[in-house]
Amino acid sequence: MSMLEFDGRRYPDGRASDPGELEWMHGAPPPDGKRITFESDTFMDFPQIRWSLSHMRELWPTVNVWRGRTGPSPLHRGDTVADIDALTFVDSNGCTRCFGEALFDTYTDGILVLHRGRVVYERYFGSLEPQLPHASQSMTKSYAGTLTAALVYEGVLDDTTTIPRYLPELSGSAWHDATLRQVMDMETGVLYTDDQFDASSDEKAYEYATGWRPPPVGYAGPRTMCDYLRTVRKGSAHGERFAYRSVNTSVLGWIMGRVTGRSFAQLLQQRLWAPLGCEEDGYVSIDAAGMPIAGGGLHLTLRDLARFGELMRQEGDWNGRQLIPAAFVHEVHRGGDRAKFKEAGIKHLPGYSYRSQWWVTHNELDAFEARGIHGQRLYIAPKAEMVVARFASHPLAKSAASDPIIMPQMLQLGRMLRA
Amino acid sequence: MSMLEFDGRRYPDGRASDPGELEWMHGAPPPDGKRITFESDTFMDFPQIRWSLSHMRELWPTVNVWRGRTGPSPLHRGDTVADIDALTFVDSNGCTRCFGEALFDTYTDGILVLHRGRVVYERYFGSLEPQLPHASQSMTKSYAGTLTAALVYEGVLDDTTTIPRYLPELSGSAWHDATLRQVMDMETGVLYTDDQFDASSDEKAYEYATGWRPPPVGYAGPRTMCDYLRTVRKGSAHGERFAYRSVNTSVLGWIMGRVTGRSFAQLLQQRLWAPLGCEEDGYVSIDAAGMPIAGGGLHLTLRDLARFGELMRQEGDWNGRQLIPAAFVHEVHRGGDRAKFKEAGIKHLPGYSYRSQWWVTHNELDAFEARGIHGQRLYIAPKAEMVVARFASHPLAKSAASDPIIMPQMLQLGRMLRA
Repeated sequence: MSMLEFDGRRYPDGRASDPGELEWMHGAPPPDGKRITFESDTFMDFPQIRWSLSHMRELWPTVNVWRGRTGPSPLHRGDTVADIDALTFVDSNGCTRCFGEALFDTYTDGILVLHRGRVVYERYFGSLEPQLPHASQSMTKSYAGTLTAALVYEGVLDDTTTIPRYLPELSGSAWHDATLRQVMDMETGVLYTDDQFDASSDEKAYEYATGWRPPPVGYAGPRTMCDYLRTVRKGSAHGERFAYRSVNTSVLGWIMGRVTGRSFAQLLQQRLWAPLGCEEDGYVSIDAAGMPIAGGGLHLTLRDLARFGELMRQEGDWNGRQLIPAAFVHEVHRGGDRAKFKEAGIKHLPGYSYRSQWWVTHNELDAFEARGIHGQRLYIAPKAEMVVARFASHPLAKSAASDPIIMPQMLQLGRMLRA
Repeated sequence: MSMLEFDGRRYPDGRASDPGELEWMHGAPPPDGKRITFESDTFMDFPQIRWSLSHMRELWPTVNVWRGRTGPSPLHRGDTVADIDALTFVDSNGCTRCFGEALFDTYTDGILVLHRGRVVYERYFGSLEPQLPHASQSMTKSYAGTLTAALVYEGVLDDTTTIPRYLPELSGSAWHDATLRQVMDMETGVLYTDDQFDASSDEKAYEYATGWRPPPVGYAGPRTMCDYLRTVRKGSAHGERFAYRSVNTSVLGWIMGRVTGRSFAQLLQQRLWAPLGCEEDGYVSIDAAGMPIAGGGLHLTLRDLARFGELMRQEGDWNGRQLIPAAFVHEVHRGGDRAKFKEAGIKHLPGYSYRSQWWVTHNELDAFEARGIHGQRLYIAPKAEMVVARFASHPLAKSAASDPIIMPQMLQLGRMLRA
């Protein structure tokens, strides 16, 4: 069995942790040792996560994102390009790797590459199947940011105004004097610890409030996302630095619901799923009050994720119909404030910036990304006319665990396709 | 506001209890008085149920029943027949009613009539939309019975054998010496009280074990369906009389999972959803171990329910492909033991019998039915070449509350179409 080491712990690799081979959730009922339940709070543990991220609706209440009535838009096969699996690249640690084999070292569940809008590579691993929605984790934020920005361009929202104008409930909270733009760009001074591994962190409190994880016995905290957000306080001035906090995206989801009278799922359906001709329904996890987890609750198929990437590459134009303002895509191209990003001290993302819930590489391909924990990635590289959609179930939540492989891998592929 | 009275209590009718008009689950977040949650255990109360039955996945974990890749099979419009809304009939209480208006007195959420395979009537009310799956409640049993019977015809299951051969876990339980046939025909002497309104009833214990309802504080009973079924005991001899008990269908679901190695959702997908060309995905509610609620957990669209009805009317043949053995449909046509059915003392279903999880009217239209609480109904009337699919959210669970209207209404419609 091939083993990998992260942070001093050893894990079987993507091939050796295949959940089908390991018989997770096999049997009627699955025996105790192979059963994955919400209540046991082990569904995000490794290797259970290799099953869970393709089956989240079986653990949580969810709301459907309907694909609409017009059938899938074609995703044509491209001409065979050079053997992508055999492409070699040097990872950030100086190790030479092969494209195809590296997928197992990053616990890839699915990867699809579009070049000039055509599918040149598409593979599925682990529990994932082409028709099965996978957790997009924080890639959800880029969907939420894009919809919010569209509403700003339409004049429905004003990004210079402060949050309580839309949500009076947040007067006195961390967002009392934060502008919508600061929330969109993650430049608020929200007092919030984002540590997945600390049971007393704000991230955990948020997970209990939203129903993402079962709260401990005797839990007496908030039971809905909105109730939780009201308790969040300001730690420092807004607008000073990039500070990535999922709660900011929850605020965006809440504002969109309040202002449009439509749920996040409905907005996704009307503005993206139906006009893009998505192939399958997606779904959004919701809290006990039915509110969307806009910071990480979207689940969708790999091919539908790729369609969204292609829409962004096409500057919001989908077969002649402008679904997203081109000016917004240009904004993302230009990126956010690189100095403020640098202040955040994210060592593995050198030179990056962040704009409207998108990560901007400022690299030679002008690439920008949607990113989610455990290795979720939508990589849009305009100069290579390339989109890479990728789902994974890495044992470690933090992107730093797979970035040293994924980032050079994407860049090398882009260079090859550009050539 | 038009009020109706059932069992001495007064309720606003279907029009006056429209959940959209009443703004249930409107708002971001919905205010306390308009919020429907799983935890509060009010989602099956009236009028909340008028929203809930079209939104169950937003309250529970569920598993998808994929429609497959081949696009929907056509459901063609039929020629305009006489004005169905204006059709009059006399209900079981001697009251003359009008077809269209009676829909509001039975809290109809959707109704679709096929005549010779063509749509001659289709209406949606309340929270239901054409693409939205509605709870089928115990109509799920007819799907489970049909799949079980198909496996019997294929020789995968033997309906003369006793249950522990397939499920050794049920040795010593109520099903220790019950045959599969007795379970399929609801002729077991299972000790089980099916009272929805008695918190100490076996039905409640089952609901807590399956996660259908939130268990009371301090609940220490079984937490999965299989654990619960093991505790069920025998009350009387098997095979003596018809005794409708949802737990029998749970046993069928468990057996199919064990014997085929496929989940109920997968069997539905492979044997019905994909070959029927269903229009939308369905879904099945599951317990904490991921086991299906085969006695009532299927949710599907009205049009896909109608497709299944048409398949049964066509004796299992779907455009030249035999999806279900014709001999099985003939079995259902013939029905079960009417004397044993009569023993059950169900006064509002005179002359009925029950076969393989289908209700058989033995009426002038040779009709047979799938039936679910709160007014769910799939009415197949071969002699009128008619199929009626119907979803509802009646305040009362028991079918006796709407049968005095629905049954004469279906019969009168069938007479008109046969003419």
